[in-house]
Order: sequence, then C-alpha cells, then structure tokens
Amino acid sequence: MMDYVLCDIGNSFLHFYHNGHIWQEKPEQYHKPINQQIFYISVSPTNLSHFLQINPNAIDLAPYFELETEYVGLGIDRLAVCCAIENGVIVDAGSAITIDVMENGKHLGGYILPGFGSYIQAYSQISPALDVMPDLSMDLHLLPQNTKSALGWGMLRSVVGLISEVSADKPIYFLGGDGKFLSRFFQNSLYHQALLFVGMQKTLEKKGFLKECRESI
Amino acid sequence: MMDYVLCDIGNSFLHFYHNGHIWQEKPEQYHKPINQQIFYISVSPTNLSHFLQINPNAIDLAPYFELETEYVGLGIDRLAVCCAIENGVIVDAGSAITIDVMENGKHLGGYILPGFGSYIQAYSQISPALDVMPDLSMDLHLLPQNTKSALGWGMLRSVVGLISEVSADKPIYFLGGDGKFLSRFFQNSLYHQALLFVGMQKTLEKKGFLKECRESI
Repeated sequence: MMDYVLCDIGNSFLHFYHNGHIWQEKPEQYHKPINQQIFYISVSPTNLSHFLQINPNAIDLAPYFELETEYVGLGIDRLAVCCAIENGVIVDAGSAITIDVMENGKHLGGYILPGFGSYIQAYSQISPALDVMPDLSMDLHLLPQNTKSALGWGMLRSVVGLISEVSADKPIYFLGGDGKFLSRFFQNSLYHQALLFVGMQKTLEKKGFLKECRESI
Repeated sequence: MMDYVLCDIGNSFLHFYHNGHIWQEKPEQYHKPINQQIFYISVSPTNLSHFLQINPNAIDLAPYFELETEYVGLGIDRLAVCCAIENGVIVDAGSAITIDVMENGKHLGGYILPGFGSYIQAYSQISPALDVMPDLSMDLHLLPQNTKSALGWGMLRSVVGLISEVSADKPIYFLGGDGKFLSRFFQNSLYHQALLFVGMQKTLEKKGFLKECRESI
C-alpha cells in the first residue's frame, strides 16, 4: 500500500493528513520536507510557493477532481469537500462560512457568509458601542436584552437560520474552526474535521493514484 | 402652535425635521444656526459638540423618552423609534441593522446585524476572491451558481430570514439607508423614513413641550 501525505494549503494554515493522523502548521514556520509522496490542494499562491520550495515533488490534485456542478468559480477546497459526500449539506465554518448542497453526487449550488470572526470585526468597525465581544451563551428563543446578546444572537441566529432553511431534512456535515460549535445547533448534523481529506482520498482512488503505486511496489 | 425643528445627530449625518419636511446635512459641512426651537437626540459626542456650538439653546430630548423595556444599553435612536409605535417590528437598516420588537407599547428586546455595507466590507477582507460586489438580483429560491450570487444571497437571505422569524405575522416598519430595499422582501411591511421623528414628536407632546409653548405664545 502506498504511503502518502495529503496537504490542504490554506491562507492561514497548512493542514496535513497521514494514515488517519491530522496536524496543522503555520505557513511561515513550516520548513521540514516530507519523505512520502505528497498530494496537495491550495487556495493560497504565496503559501503554495513556499511549500513547493520545500517539497518540489508534491503533486497538485486540483486537475483530478470530478464534480458535477453548474457553479462557476468554486474554490478548490469546497470542491474537494463536495467530492467526499453524495447527499447532504456541507458547512465549512472558517474565516468565511460556505454552505454547499449535494444531491446524488451532484453539487446543486452554495452560499457564502462571513465567518464568526469576521462578524465580530464588522461589528467593531461600525461603532465603538458595538466593539464588544458578542455573547453566544443565552437561550436562542429569548429576545436579547443587552448589546452583547443582541450582537451574538444577531449573527448566530441569522447563520443558523440560513443553514436550517437550506438543509431542510438533509444531513449536515460541519468542518472548519467554528464547525464543532455551530454543529451543536442542529440535530441531523455531523462534525467531520477531515472531510476535505476524504474528498482528496476518494479522488486519489478514483484516478488510480493508489493503484498505480501498489503495482509499482 | 409652536414652530420647532427636530434633529437626529448620527455618526455620518445630521437629520432634520421641520413641518413635515426632512433633510440631512454632513456634520463637517453644517454651519447655519436654526432660528426655531430645536429638540435633538445624539449618538455622536463629536458631532453633538459641533452642533451645540452652532445651536447652543437646543434641547436634548433623551431624558424625556419613556419606554417600558428590560434592555440595557438601548441606543437613543432605537429608543426614539420604539416610542413611535405600539405593536410591530422595527428594522433600522443603516451601518448596522437593528431589529426591535414592540408589543402593546412595551419593548420586548432586539437584535443587531451588520449593515449591508458592512457585510460587503467583511467579505472583501476575508480573501481577494471574495472582494467582489455581491449580486442581489437573482431569484431568492434558487441556489447560487457563482461567487457574486453566493455572497449576495448569503447576506440577504440570512438577514431576511432573521427578520421573518422574529416578525412572524407582526407588521414590520423599515427605516434607514437600506430600509426601502429591504422592505421589498416582506408583505406586511411599511417603509417609514421619518419614524424616529414620530417618536420624538410623540414624546414632545406627552411631556407637554408643545403645550407649554402654546401657553407662552
């Protein structure tokens, strides 16, 4: 069996996968070459350039993904995750919150919301009065009675509401830095940190990368 | 009858009301004193200071509002608008979008969302790929198929969804720069630019300012 490493090159972090183990590195602190064959995807030209100086033989998996979609300009990270599941809604809650809908292996479309960190920054820039940490701990069904709750429940309920509306009774797969927190508000949900790597792995198998390697061993 | 001018001192503009006529001035360009008695509210200490140098006899109406509420820290502009209606939801869509609920003259609480301009700025700061003008012209019921629609409908549907959820079947009163645009998505809605001045005027009447003046005439 081929020994390989998967890498997801983002704007803030490099995420790695190897034999069920996942870890992340800050791009500017990453300097150690990897011995195994690496397959990567990247949304950051700068971080990719640095990564390829250290691992010049790494293979870009982007051209190999197959996804039925009419969406123009789908980020490679969203595309990889969509390749991981056949049916359901995928919510990647990071610096942005992307919501993509899959049905029988077809991508039906998607929305983009600001990430929670981005909401907090937006509030703080509107007025000094809104430059406070939103409160996310109160009952979802009560009307807020102070600024912190009003901000927290404005952003949380609007995001939760949109995901509910789009998902209806479909299963919802959460990932990303705020994915675990956000998944708590949904019954039919699963937090799956490594869903992007599942999509990469499925593509590796489908395209015969692992088979080729097995034959060469 | 007393001849008076109302003024709402905001962060970006001074809004004036006189005998059914409404106008606005940029704070830095405002220099002409007003002959009539002025009643004002202010959320901007800087703009207020400038305004009072020009109109030293203007009266701050803030201490005179009466609103039954448990909300701590309600901005004076939201408070003034809430005094204008007995039942319904008030949506002030400006640099922030505030949503307040009134029932039988009592304020039940409220939420705060970023304003649309603030969403657009937030998107642009997340990634160069999201630094585009969101498309707000497509069908609300279709899943977006490109970045511009994904951004536009992410922000619009999440805001519209939260307002719908909070309002249920109550009437919704819209005001603020984006209020007219937003009101289009609701059947039981009314765009009322001058609602804040209605609240100020009701308070003037309730507190006998107009009566006192009539007697003195």
